[in-house]
Amino acid sequence: MTAVERMPAATSVPGMLARGRELVDPPLRQALDRLDDHSRLVAAYHLGWCDEHGRPANGSSGKAIRSGLTLLVGEAVGGRAEPAVPGGVAVELVHNFSLIHDDLMDRDTKRRHRRTVWAIWGDATAVLVGDALACLADEVLAESNTPYAAPAGHALAVATRKLIRGQVLDVAFERRDDVTLAECLDMAAGKTGALLGVAAELGAILSGADPVTCDAFRTYGWELGLAFQLVDDLLGIWGTPETTGKPVFSDLFAHKKTLPVVWSLQYGGAPGRDLAAWFANPSGDASEAAELVERAGGREWALAEAEERVRNAGKALDAAGIAPANRDQLDQLAQFVAERQL
Amino acid sequence: MTAVERMPAATSVPGMLARGRELVDPPLRQALDRLDDHSRLVAAYHLGWCDEHGRPANGSSGKAIRSGLTLLVGEAVGGRAEPAVPGGVAVELVHNFSLIHDDLMDRDTKRRHRRTVWAIWGDATAVLVGDALACLADEVLAESNTPYAAPAGHALAVATRKLIRGQVLDVAFERRDDVTLAECLDMAAGKTGALLGVAAELGAILSGADPVTCDAFRTYGWELGLAFQLVDDLLGIWGTPETTGKPVFSDLFAHKKTLPVVWSLQYGGAPGRDLAAWFANPSGDASEAAELVERAGGREWALAEAEERVRNAGKALDAAGIAPANRDQLDQLAQFVAERQL
Repeated sequence: MTAVERMPAATSVPGMLARGRELVDPPLRQALDRLDDHSRLVAAYHLGWCDEHGRPANGSSGKAIRSGLTLLVGEAVGGRAEPAVPGGVAVELVHNFSLIHDDLMDRDTKRRHRRTVWAIWGDATAVLVGDALACLADEVLAESNTPYAAPAGHALAVATRKLIRGQVLDVAFERRDDVTLAECLDMAAGKTGALLGVAAELGAILSGADPVTCDAFRTYGWELGLAFQLVDDLLGIWGTPETTGKPVFSDLFAHKKTLPVVWSLQYGGAPGRDLAAWFANPSGDASEAAELVERAGGREWALAEAEERVRNAGKALDAAGIAPANRDQLDQLAQFVAERQL
Repeated sequence: MTAVERMPAATSVPGMLARGRELVDPPLRQALDRLDDHSRLVAAYHLGWCDEHGRPANGSSGKAIRSGLTLLVGEAVGGRAEPAVPGGVAVELVHNFSLIHDDLMDRDTKRRHRRTVWAIWGDATAVLVGDALACLADEVLAESNTPYAAPAGHALAVATRKLIRGQVLDVAFERRDDVTLAECLDMAAGKTGALLGVAAELGAILSGADPVTCDAFRTYGWELGLAFQLVDDLLGIWGTPETTGKPVFSDLFAHKKTLPVVWSLQYGGAPGRDLAAWFANPSGDASEAAELVERAGGREWALAEAEERVRNAGKALDAAGIAPANRDQLDQLAQFVAERQL
């Protein structure tokens, strides 16, 4: 079966995401226009729209999976993507607020091959531009000017609180060497599940879906988020430089205890114990650790778990009662996330 | 005229603020209960409710002027403070979010005689707890469960953006020595006017006032905010340790170019030029600089400007059409702000 047969061009996932972007980018730019000149430049740089001096650039600003999801759900519920657009803009703003603050807290100097905001402009700018983007998200949603603005704002605030909680756990876990798989999954649910969950939920809320349907879509997005994180963690170990832009084994070089690692440490028997010894005294040879994760079963577990999450996402959609064509699109998006560059 | 004659005990400003606090503190504590244990401890510490180990404390958490204002406006518009309570909680949350982030950005190690959040728990905690408080503000407002939740959320988001913009200007001005009075007033409007403005506006919105009345109250709060800042700047130079908890001339020791200083530099003639020379090469003798501000006319200007702002606040209330007793309370609050500890 060729790729074309599986996904007709008009509804291929990259095509769907590109179409979503065309709807979301103009109001996203308009939202940034409310900022002072300096903050707008910094935000536009972070989004890949210009270089640090404001010269137009074609940097990648990511795949816009979150806003794409919001629009697809909007279409599935109400037949049109337009009412969901403020939701798509809001989730992109919150996503980028969290990236700017996370880069600062983690002291990461690079993102998508470019210097991070704090690394160029300092801590205060990173704090303030992140704060401003979170604020714009609320403004845009409140202006959607429908009876759904208040429940949409509430859903976004709850999800943002869970997103922040995920980062709180992440920071706390860095100081511990006894983090359990359950704790790691809880953190991943916050850091990735909450925002993909609300991305889907907002599409439903803004299209006037009933609460049961809104919940079903939030669960779909949430499960998708966990699949996304599991795949991300697999790519962090075995992803090639061509697909990830990072050296192979990069998360192991950084001694990051991602989900496949934590599973291996907890359930991986003898290879898991060897892996624990490697982390206690890491050698420069990260391929050794990757081999141990594989022998411990961590790679296999993460792949199976990602597939399970995609199946759960599909089950959640059963409760949403949507037309087959829309269902097909959302299933394809879930598959796309799970198979991403693996 | 004694203080008692001027302000009957039941409606004295400190009494009004204490009463407001009784209404706002319980839902504020409930909001914090949604946070993870660590973030809740940090927030409760910052609010003066406990020490850094969680032991109950009676630290001052400020005068709660913002939430008090929200409730007084609620009463003035609708006869009851209760509908305005979520607004009072939200403005206190946003105020404290901005303090925690500001302390981090300014690298201030003390606030109200206690170590600041970043100084105790580090940068990441200060970023995350600030983010979480901003988020809780949105949640609380969205849950107010009235047709006014969406316009209230919008007003808060716009004001928060202006507050952030004020801090952006503050950070930028630290690197410049040619900041004009107009620019400083613009910054003060953001840093102090925006939040007092929305504090008053939310009381009106949540009590069902029409848009013209809501605007009138926002202007009242905005002008009050500028009076507040001018008085703060005067206290930063001439405030005694008994009233401010800081040494006299403290802002001058820190070489801060506050509003009376900037006025003196721009309009203060020969003493203003001497003051510029002092700032270019500050001696340890801050009393010399204070004397120059006074001779340049900066102190007199700031006092007169604060009084003018209080008058403007009163004029704005004329458009709100409220009962004399409520009007009297709001006028008293404005006077209290302007005469605070001077």
